[in-house]
Amino acid sequence: MSESACVFCPVVEALLRSETYQPDGSAALYRRIAVLPASIAILSSDQYYPGYSLVVAKTHATELYQLPQPESTQYFQDMLRVARAMAEVFTPRKMNYELLGNTVGHLHWHLFPRYTWDPNPMRPTWEHAHAPKTLSPEEYEATIAAIRRCLG
Amino acid sequence: MSESACVFCPVVEALLRSETYQPDGSAALYRRIAVLPASIAILSSDQYYPGYSLVVAKTHATELYQLPQPESTQYFQDMLRVARAMAEVFTPRKMNYELLGNTVGHLHWHLFPRYTWDPNPMRPTWEHAHAPKTLSPEEYEATIAAIRRCLG
Repeated sequence: MSESACVFCPVVEALLRSETYQPDGSAALYRRIAVLPASIAILSSDQYYPGYSLVVAKTHATELYQLPQPESTQYFQDMLRVARAMAEVFTPRKMNYELLGNTVGHLHWHLFPRYTWDPNPMRPTWEHAHAPKTLSPEEYEATIAAIRRCLG
Repeated sequence: MSESACVFCPVVEALLRSETYQPDGSAALYRRIAVLPASIAILSSDQYYPGYSLVVAKTHATELYQLPQPESTQYFQDMLRVARAMAEVFTPRKMNYELLGNTVGHLHWHLFPRYTWDPNPMRPTWEHAHAPKTLSPEEYEATIAAIRRCLG
């Protein structure tokens, strides 16, 4: 299931057991939204696009078509469930669903809610560089609680 | 099923009946790879990333979670089938799967094969502006034929 050189495998393992995970010697803090059947939903620390989250596959694989079909379908449905909840909480103009993996080759959906007020709403987020926007611990908690309420 | 102001609805309708479609008064030429159960696969005119294709939903909807679940699942499986075929033909370093819809609000997956030789393989395509790369009619035909052979 997991691969020793992968950055996300230990994140998945840790978040199966606890709400947050900070790798040794790293400034990154991963905050779990929910454990889903084929994945773990994680609220990004960067909340420049409010709600921005990752949905990380439990299984280590680099391409969607490498998962057995029932698992890739479940992984897709997990992602949709998070997207729907996010749309309910944040009422974005549009959702952007992206699975890239160019840098970290462990399946993860980027879910970007897009807003009328964002700097370039008609274009992909990647065309607009921005400094990460962090929240207070209470704000992260409140955001996660709001998404969870809509996950059903 | 279709919406009058949508750019992609007439493309879908036309490509259900014929291999190519050029809207009146437009320079764009849409080339069908295949009609799939929930979508139409289209080879992009821009082949800067060889194989770059769109998988456009037959039904007009703007968000994945607006489709009934059996249809969104089928649409996802259609896209995976095209991605798998593309990987077989082009042996990319990585596939990028993106559903954005910021400009055209009719569900369409962007399938970008990524290569070790591409200008920025560790980052999303959108961070590297490029002039579209067009092929000869024979090259488009050969590319489509190769993908079709692997679609099974």
